[in-house]
Amino acid sequence: MQHTGSFKPRGAFSRMLAASLPAAGVIAASGGNHGAAVAYAARALGATAEIFVPTTAPAAKVARIAGYGARVVQVGASYNEAMLASQARAAETGALEVHAYDHPDVLAGQGTVGREFEQDAPELTHVLVATGGGGLIGGIAAWYASRAMVVSVEPEGCPTLHDALAAGHPVAAPVGGVAADSLGARQVGAAMFPVAQAYVRHAILVSDMAILAAQHLLWDRLRILVEPGGATAFAALTSGAFVPPPGARLGVVLCGANTDPGKMENP
Amino acid sequence: MQHTGSFKPRGAFSRMLAASLPAAGVIAASGGNHGAAVAYAARALGATAEIFVPTTAPAAKVARIAGYGARVVQVGASYNEAMLASQARAAETGALEVHAYDHPDVLAGQGTVGREFEQDAPELTHVLVATGGGGLIGGIAAWYASRAMVVSVEPEGCPTLHDALAAGHPVAAPVGGVAADSLGARQVGAAMFPVAQAYVRHAILVSDMAILAAQHLLWDRLRILVEPGGATAFAALTSGAFVPPPGARLGVVLCGANTDPGKMENP
Repeated sequence: MQHTGSFKPRGAFSRMLAASLPAAGVIAASGGNHGAAVAYAARALGATAEIFVPTTAPAAKVARIAGYGARVVQVGASYNEAMLASQARAAETGALEVHAYDHPDVLAGQGTVGREFEQDAPELTHVLVATGGGGLIGGIAAWYASRAMVVSVEPEGCPTLHDALAAGHPVAAPVGGVAADSLGARQVGAAMFPVAQAYVRHAILVSDMAILAAQHLLWDRLRILVEPGGATAFAALTSGAFVPPPGARLGVVLCGANTDPGKMENP
Repeated sequence: MQHTGSFKPRGAFSRMLAASLPAAGVIAASGGNHGAAVAYAARALGATAEIFVPTTAPAAKVARIAGYGARVVQVGASYNEAMLASQARAAETGALEVHAYDHPDVLAGQGTVGREFEQDAPELTHVLVATGGGGLIGGIAAWYASRAMVVSVEPEGCPTLHDALAAGHPVAAPVGGVAADSLGARQVGAAMFPVAQAYVRHAILVSDMAILAAQHLLWDRLRILVEPGGATAFAALTSGAFVPPPGARLGVVLCGANTDPGKMENP
C-alpha cells in the first residue's frame, strides 16, 4: 500500500535526495517495481526519468511506468541487456543512475522500513524479510543491527542470499519460480553482503507452493492482496520453514503488491 | 481488513454482548457479510450459530460461514424466504435473532466505526458512508451527531435511504446493480431512520459505472481491493457526485472486501 505498490520508492528517493540531480535527470533499468518507483520519485522531485525495460516487459507495466511521467525505452531481450543499454545512455547524457538495490543510499532508503517497524512495534524480536537483490533486507538489517533477529526468506528458485552466505561472497544463483519477477536478482549486491553476514541470522528457503499458499491466506483472512514476492516472507511462517522460538514477537514485511488481482494462481 | 472482511462483526458482537445468550445460541439469515460476521462473533463468544442462507448462495460463501464454525442451513429461493425460515426456527429453539441492521444494538456496534474514525482523525468535516439497510450509517451518524457531516452514498440501483428520506419514512426500493449483494436491502431499518433524518446531510446516488471505476482506482493507486459495495462511498468523490466544499477534510468508509479478486469487473 505504499506509493507505486512496493517499498522501492524509499530507496529511489534516498538515492536521489543524497545526490545532486543532473539536468539530464535520472536513469534506471527495470520493468518492474523499481522502474515504477524511480519514475514516481523523479516526478515528485521535478526530475526527468528514463526507464529502460526489456522488450518482453508486459504492456501493463510499461504503461504504469509511463503513467508516472517517465520516458520508457524498450530495448533488449532481457533485463541485463536493458541494463547495459541504460548504462551506455547514462554515459552519454550524464543522467544519475539509480540502481535497483546495490548502492548504500538505496540501502539506507529501504532501511526506513526497519525504522518505521521499530517505531510502531518496538517489542519485535524477529523481522522476516524477503530477499531478491538484498536492498530491502540489507537496509533493515543495518537499521536493527543486533536489536532484533533479521531473517531472510527466499524462494527455492531464487536463493541469492542463501547461496552467498554459504559461499562467503555474492555468487550467481538460479532465477526461477513464481516470485522471480520481483525477487529474481541474479545475485545479492556487494553493498548489502557484509551487512547480511553480520546481522542476518537465518537464510530460509520456501517452495513456490508455500508462497502461493501464503498469498492466498493473506487474501482470505486479512484481505491483503500481494504479489508472490510480497508473500514470501510470510510463507516461512505459514509453511513451518521458520519456527519462532517461544516468546518471539514477529514482524513480517509484505514488500509488494504489483500483481493483477485476476491472475492470482492457485497453490 | 476487519475480521471476516467487513464491518459487520461490530454489530454482531454488540448485539450478542448486550443480550444474555440463550443455550440455543444465535441465529441469523444472510448468505453474505452478516452471516460470516455472526458466525465469527458467535465462535468468539462460545455460542452456537445457525445461519440461514438461500439455496442460491454461492458455495464459496457457504463454505466461509461454515469455516467460522456455524451450522449453515440452505433453504428458500431468496433472502426473504431464508429469513422467514430462520424466524420460524428461532421461535422453535429460543435462539437469539441477530438482525443484519435493524436493531439499536447493531447500530451501536457499527457506530464504533465512527468512534474510531474520530479518534484517529478528529479533524474530519465530512464522513462518506455507503448505505444498504442503514446499520452502518445509522451508527456512524448517531456517533457524530452534528460534529461532522455524514453523507450517505448509494448505488442508483439500490436507493433505499434516498427514497426513504424523500418519502419521509422507510419505503421499499428497487434492488439491483453491481453492489446489490452487499447494499441490496429492500428498505432501510426503522431503528436508523430517525437518526438519518436528524444527522445525514446528503443522500447521494452513484452509477454502477462510477462504483466499478472507484473499485479499480482503489486497487490501482492504493492496492486496496474491495467489493463494489465497499467502493460505493469513494465513488461519490471520484465521480464528482459529491463535491466537497473548500477546506473540507473527508473520511471515506471502505466497508467490505468480500469479493473474489479474479472477478473484479471492468467499468
